[in-house]
Amino acid sequence: CPCPLPSGDTALSRLVRRLLSARRSLDLCLFSFSCPQLARAVQLLHRRGVRVRLVTDAQYMGLHGSQIGRLRHAGIQVRHDQHSGYMHHKFAIVDRRMLITGSLNWTTQAIQSNRENVLVVEDTEYVKAFQEEFERIWEEYNPANYRFF
Amino acid sequence: CPCPLPSGDTALSRLVRRLLSARRSLDLCLFSFSCPQLARAVQLLHRRGVRVRLVTDAQYMGLHGSQIGRLRHAGIQVRHDQHSGYMHHKFAIVDRRMLITGSLNWTTQAIQSNRENVLVVEDTEYVKAFQEEFERIWEEYNPANYRFF
Repeated sequence: CPCPLPSGDTALSRLVRRLLSARRSLDLCLFSFSCPQLARAVQLLHRRGVRVRLVTDAQYMGLHGSQIGRLRHAGIQVRHDQHSGYMHHKFAIVDRRMLITGSLNWTTQAIQSNRENVLVVEDTEYVKAFQEEFERIWEEYNPANYRFF
Repeated sequence: CPCPLPSGDTALSRLVRRLLSARRSLDLCLFSFSCPQLARAVQLLHRRGVRVRLVTDAQYMGLHGSQIGRLRHAGIQVRHDQHSGYMHHKFAIVDRRMLITGSLNWTTQAIQSNRENVLVVEDTEYVKAFQEEFERIWEEYNPANYRFF
């Protein structure tokens, strides 16, 4: 495989391990997603039967290197905004109990070259607020509601 | 004044109120800073004698609408990276006890048009990790260490 899952104790490998701990669901709300290793982890979860839902930004999903097409091809449900503003969140929720959020876009550039932060939060109050935002966005971006502009 | 501090119960006014609660220090680590209302709050704190330190991204600080020049002009200490990668954090620490972080860049576009999140965290463990990152960056970006490239 051209992009093995990262091993060792890098920030990327720690992030991948958190994601791979998912047993039931993975909700992703990502402005930009071009990192192949993270896409591979998400595909692996999907193949294991974890329910993956992904929300992304319409302007960024088609950029060179984006993994969104590949994930859709693999059968993962993807929804995107239909605004001129950005869907600028960058968070994941594992099994509705662990929130992973911060400044990090899921891009190779960000992981390799930027100063970034990623918070892992299991406090119910924070997880609930982000889960509710996810569900709002998931409904709002339902393709059944598209107005073609 | 052309840009009054926001009032009412908007996300921006809540953010401003958190900032204005600072009594001793405000540490800012911001990829992009163009929002005039937030700049005004920061200047107000500086005038009140709160120690404000600001770290930002070299590529973004000179963009149209950036408030960085204005803040420097007001006497606020600003340091910036000297990498090709981005200094992509977007966090503030109030009095070394309250962390404000998330996806939100401090721009009018982000506040008015994007889907964003801002977390307010007072848990010591999280605040400490971000305070340490701030101090590392503050030292690393000390102008005494510049290599002109």
